[in-house]
Amino acid sequence: MTRPDGRSYDQLRPISFQHGIAPHATGSVLVSFGNTRVICAATIQEDIPRWMKMQKVGGGWLTAEYNMLPYSTLDRKARDITRGKIDGRSSEIQRLIGRSLRAVVDLKALGHRTVWLDCDVLQADGGTRTASITGGCVAVAIALNKLIAEGKLRTFPMKKLISGISAGIFQNEAILDLDYPEDKHASVDFNVVMTEDHEFVEVQGSGEEAVFSSEQMDAMLDLARKGVSEITELQKQAILDADQASPGDLASLVDAINH
Amino acid sequence: MTRPDGRSYDQLRPISFQHGIAPHATGSVLVSFGNTRVICAATIQEDIPRWMKMQKVGGGWLTAEYNMLPYSTLDRKARDITRGKIDGRSSEIQRLIGRSLRAVVDLKALGHRTVWLDCDVLQADGGTRTASITGGCVAVAIALNKLIAEGKLRTFPMKKLISGISAGIFQNEAILDLDYPEDKHASVDFNVVMTEDHEFVEVQGSGEEAVFSSEQMDAMLDLARKGVSEITELQKQAILDADQASPGDLASLVDAINH
Amino acid sequence: MTRPDGRSYDQLRPISFQHGIAPHATGSVLVSFGNTRVICAATIQEDIPRWMKMQKVGGGWLTAEYNMLPYSTLDRKARDITRGKIDGRSSEIQRLIGRSLRAVVDLKALGHRTVWLDCDVLQADGGTRTASITGGCVAVAIALNKLIAEGKLRTFPMKKLISGISAGIFQNEAILDLDYPEDKHASVDFNVVMTEDHEFVEVQGSGEEAVFSSEQMDAMLDLARKGVSEITELQKQAILDADQASPGDLASLVDAINH
Amino acid sequence: MTRPDGRSYDQLRPISFQHGIAPHATGSVLVSFGNTRVICAATIQEDIPRWMKMQKVGGGWLTAEYNMLPYSTLDRKARDITRGKIDGRSSEIQRLIGRSLRAVVDLKALGHRTVWLDCDVLQADGGTRTASITGGCVAVAIALNKLIAEGKLRTFPMKKLISGISAGIFQNEAILDLDYPEDKHASVDFNVVMTEDHEFVEVQGSGEEAVFSSEQMDAMLDLARKGVSEITELQKQAILDADQASPGDLASLVDAINH
Amino acid sequence: MTRPDGRSYDQLRPISFQHGIAPHATGSVLVSFGNTRVICAATIQEDIPRWMKMQKVGGGWLTAEYNMLPYSTLDRKARDITRGKIDGRSSEIQRLIGRSLRAVVDLKALGHRTVWLDCDVLQADGGTRTASITGGCVAVAIALNKLIAEGKLRTFPMKKLISGISAGIFQNEAILDLDYPEDKHASVDFNVVMTEDHEFVEVQGSGEEAVFSSEQMDAMLDLARKGVSEITELQKQAILDADQASPGDLASLVDAINH
Amino acid sequence: MTRPDGRSYDQLRPISFQHGIAPHATGSVLVSFGNTRVICAATIQEDIPRWMKMQKVGGGWLTAEYNMLPYSTLDRKARDITRGKIDGRSSEIQRLIGRSLRAVVDLKALGHRTVWLDCDVLQADGGTRTASITGGCVAVAIALNKLIAEGKLRTFPMKKLISGISAGIFQNEAILDLDYPEDKHASVDFNVVMTEDHEFVEVQGSGEEAVFSSEQMDAMLDLARKGVSEITELQKQAILDADQASPGDLASLVDAINH
Repeated sequence: MTRPDGRSYDQLRPISFQHGIAPHATGSVLVSFGNTRVICAATIQEDIPRWMKMQKVGGGWLTAEYNMLPYSTLDRKARDITRGKIDGRSSEIQRLIGRSLRAVVDLKALGHRTVWLDCDVLQADGGTRTASITGGCVAVAIALNKLIAEGKLRTFPMKKLISGISAGIFQNEAILDLDYPEDKHASVDFNVVMTEDHEFVEVQGSGEEAVFSSEQMDAMLDLARKGVSEITELQKQAILDADQASPGDLASLVDAINH
Repeated sequence: MTRPDGRSYDQLRPISFQHGIAPHATGSVLVSFGNTRVICAATIQEDIPRWMKMQKVGGGWLTAEYNMLPYSTLDRKARDITRGKIDGRSSEIQRLIGRSLRAVVDLKALGHRTVWLDCDVLQADGGTRTASITGGCVAVAIALNKLIAEGKLRTFPMKKLISGISAGIFQNEAILDLDYPEDKHASVDFNVVMTEDHEFVEVQGSGEEAVFSSEQMDAMLDLARKGVSEITELQKQAILDADQASPGDLASLVDAINH
Repeated sequence: MTRPDGRSYDQLRPISFQHGIAPHATGSVLVSFGNTRVICAATIQEDIPRWMKMQKVGGGWLTAEYNMLPYSTLDRKARDITRGKIDGRSSEIQRLIGRSLRAVVDLKALGHRTVWLDCDVLQADGGTRTASITGGCVAVAIALNKLIAEGKLRTFPMKKLISGISAGIFQNEAILDLDYPEDKHASVDFNVVMTEDHEFVEVQGSGEEAVFSSEQMDAMLDLARKGVSEITELQKQAILDADQASPGDLASLVDAINH
Repeated sequence: MTRPDGRSYDQLRPISFQHGIAPHATGSVLVSFGNTRVICAATIQEDIPRWMKMQKVGGGWLTAEYNMLPYSTLDRKARDITRGKIDGRSSEIQRLIGRSLRAVVDLKALGHRTVWLDCDVLQADGGTRTASITGGCVAVAIALNKLIAEGKLRTFPMKKLISGISAGIFQNEAILDLDYPEDKHASVDFNVVMTEDHEFVEVQGSGEEAVFSSEQMDAMLDLARKGVSEITELQKQAILDADQASPGDLASLVDAINH
Repeated sequence: MTRPDGRSYDQLRPISFQHGIAPHATGSVLVSFGNTRVICAATIQEDIPRWMKMQKVGGGWLTAEYNMLPYSTLDRKARDITRGKIDGRSSEIQRLIGRSLRAVVDLKALGHRTVWLDCDVLQADGGTRTASITGGCVAVAIALNKLIAEGKLRTFPMKKLISGISAGIFQNEAILDLDYPEDKHASVDFNVVMTEDHEFVEVQGSGEEAVFSSEQMDAMLDLARKGVSEITELQKQAILDADQASPGDLASLVDAINH
Repeated sequence: MTRPDGRSYDQLRPISFQHGIAPHATGSVLVSFGNTRVICAATIQEDIPRWMKMQKVGGGWLTAEYNMLPYSTLDRKARDITRGKIDGRSSEIQRLIGRSLRAVVDLKALGHRTVWLDCDVLQADGGTRTASITGGCVAVAIALNKLIAEGKLRTFPMKKLISGISAGIFQNEAILDLDYPEDKHASVDFNVVMTEDHEFVEVQGSGEEAVFSSEQMDAMLDLARKGVSEITELQKQAILDADQASPGDLASLVDAINH
């Protein structure tokens, strides 16, 4: 098997994080997985959702919105508001992003506030949902760090870093981090969200009008573990870089990356 | 660990299929997993979606809609049309149901027609999505069988039976087929769609604001395999019963259940 | 004139009530008028609508929703949420159902609560609106009875039973309880809602692109009275049966059927 | 019983038709029943609805839209588009208006065109639906007359004039043509649509949280007949006046009013 | 250059105001600019918008809605609710109307109430937005006058009268008050809102797929000033006439027109 | 008067264009006016709108969409799809952008294709609509240039460059290019769209609950002319830079900037 862009079966695309893409957000990065680029912006709102107030749930909340900008795809994609309803796929992805991050953020420790995580895809080339989770985790960490620097929080509410990565079966072999041409021809599409110490947060495997075996699943999960290890290092560096750009309370940051 | 309803950790709830619940549909069953009850109705439309015509894709299509009736839950659930938009969770589930069945139906062999699979939840007590897939597979099989009996199809387009089943981590142990009280307190929720010969179609595992290990995942997958074996036998019997109620071309049926 | 299914001009279709079709509802029946089948579920909500609070109206409220399930018709009917708006005909029918039942329920005696009556058509073969009212009255009576059994109500707030029945002009003769083939070819369509003692609650007669005379109207109203007498007996038996299945305060029940 | 505005029990409010209120429509009148005022505008579109084309039904179509202008009520009524959905009551009324007029218009004779009848309520003081039908019939007649004058039609497709009128039970007596204060306190609300020769087109009687007897119904229908006789004369004069204002083919007009 | 209807380049169409077109509104006029006719109705609501309450802004509010009735155009225009969204052009115009009137109404002096100004176009022949502002100013003045007459207000909150007028470049010359045939062929469309003493409230000039020079702009603004002078006199007379029809506190009126 | 950021009254903020921000678009720039940053992406679709086909208009079309990303404002702004309707202000701005560019693009010369110009605001600090027009003109020029380079067009359909700029009255003085703090306190807000040779395309002046004089308008227009001269030079350089990055047919480019 040869991958269209020449990568080995277990090789990630070049991954980078550009800090501060949306300065009005509390924390933001432009995350790139090769040609896939997503704006991830975490905004803090000093209030909680209406349903939490009614249910008298303590603590805070974290919610995500995912959107593909019209020019992110090869053929222009009509905006949701033009079509009059949110895209089913987008709705599913934003539920996944929110659920994944809530698994590692201590909502009680967050206090009476909401973290809005917006993920807007600028360029789509496969893996936008896992890039959103990976970049979103960095954006939220930067935002939380800022709350600590401003004295609004005393402890860092994110218990572990998480990252998302895709694997798949392409030409009968398991490969890591599929780009769009691979994704289109893969018989199985696997998306994994993991903590930095390799616990699972979410596992979603889907035979695209096909089925798959236990052995194939194991091979894909092994690739995912390898990818997550590499990505976690890049995330830590990105959070450190952001902190140095706008110095805050380093203690919380170190806590976040060494715990 | 003791399960609230006294089942052993690897025991399914009583499962049954009532044939012909919606006689205007081409094939229909009322599927029950304990107190969870779902109307599954497969309707054949002798046309294909507009996008297939425009893309000049050959063959047919299968699509699913999932809906919770307002009185299916303990507190009445407002209808989607009252809220003005489809529920995000429902949208995600109906995409899963459609994708799962398309993995085992040969769309080319279906001819220029669409199978609409409607799943309306009459009573929700946990596992409505997996009950929908399990019952939906039976409803579609009955409908396809009817097409053969009417001479509209010559070969049976469903390659294998599939069933859906849930597993989870409850009080730190893996259990099979969660009902609502278990689901509410489970730390991990796993939904698996499998073929009758234990190939995966879909795997969706989600830590509910929690994470899980490889060992836990393996335990849940083992339970799922056991459940699917038992469910498949019940599905085959339900399809046979429906065929005897309205005798069709037995050859296709036998083909469906013995292949 | 010969009716397509061989009934005499003044003969009802077989009518039955299956209790407990939706156990999470407070009271529910599956009502059948021949092949027409409707799920009627009454759910009690311990709250009143916002507009009542703002207008400081005392007592409770009763409201109805009517919906045709997609597989209830010979050609699959798209869901309202897919079409983006509630069907005009459905909206009209649900207003009729709610208005009819409010005419016989003492809203003051209901207390600070709302009765939601959901009518979902499982199979449509003519007369779905009158079947909904007839079955809906039974479902609401069962639900109110349950409130009495639970000690939440002391007196039975339904003053009389009501039932709905259709009549029409078919091949120039008045006939009772039209099924779909008759309805399609009838020149006049008459729907009547009456109390058990033959007072009118609602009268809706419509020339289907035709007109009708006073004599024709009188003939149809006479048929309706005959039909209502027969249906009322079946309703009383259904309420008794439900009460015996889940014994409550018989006093209220007897009061309901003998007042 | 004394009526609030001093009318006798069988007396209509002053009724008038002002021709040409909306000159861009093919035919239009501002109809007044006392303080109730409705703009009725019939517009001809040289096309038929999509569903007719698909079903290959011959002839034309007539459809109605009913709307209350925001300032027509004592408290300002929010526009449908602000509320995001059409008002249930409006939807029901516009279906009634369209159905009533289609009962007397020969759609085959109309040719390949659609009559749009718009009824916008300028001032609401009871009886807006019956005023809309009464005025709408005049507007459509004027529009059809214009088609004849222009040589687009050879025979007049409206077979008879129709009018709508309300009756009700107020302080236990039957009265004709209720205004808003009467309507609010009436225990029964009856709306009748009749041809000029007293055949029924639509009968809608509704106990407003009350019931009514056969005798009461007969009394209301007698009043309705009396009202329709008087209204028909006013309609004929209004159509004649419009024709003289913009002279057309008098033959069709005379045919319309003397047939 | 010759104008299609024979007017000189600086001549307004006949302008009139018919008082009391919608009696349930607090103040209403039917304004005509030639064949353009708009119902302008001002309704007072004794409440303020939710956002004002939340922001704790004192005083009142004024808001406008603009709508074209379906029969106002040569080809019937579908209602917004049928299309499912408000027309972009209508949305823009109603924002302009509200903003213009708020520039001359002292919202603090209005007290804790909202003025709703509804502008429904009965016949469109060019200049509907400027006619709406011109007629809307009169309707609001009448409504405010009525509040004074009723003792609800002590001082007149409208500081100056405003009027709207269009100018344009037609066949390379500047002309005043374009009707639809002129508007359609104009290369530049200019809408101006001015106070009675020639201060600007809004200036909107748009090359219709064309551009224009400073000199052309100056010529159009000069025409606008001339038009506003003439219109203001007509507005004052219309307000006086309305006051005499329903005598109120003349002091406020005189104050309004002579300040 | 002193401006909050220390600029002189006639000084622009730093303006820059970053080419290629959205590589899947045909042409794209990230335009900055100080802290205001807008993604402008022009996408070519080889088709024309349905209404053009029905009206059999020749040539092509250009349309714009304007959207504020949720994190572009100081308080997070809910997405249109969440609110269920497009923001009135956004709708007005996107109509302005499209109309302005159509004034200088020869739609006949564009051929049977549509230019979609998407403007997504990444950071809002005043002047987003004029930045969108200024950056949008550059993005469209780059896209058209690419069509020429690919041989799809032979002549450059953009006749002139346009730019948008704001002016206003702040503390009684006219100033150029208002940022958000200035805009919030300005008594008059003026937006001007001009060609490179100082012809007007659009003029929109609005007293924010205030009025303004002729002299003030003249002062603001003079500032706008000065600003446009400076901006045009920057636009030309940005188009040249983009062309050198992806070399095309220089002839068309030179034609665009020197005509």
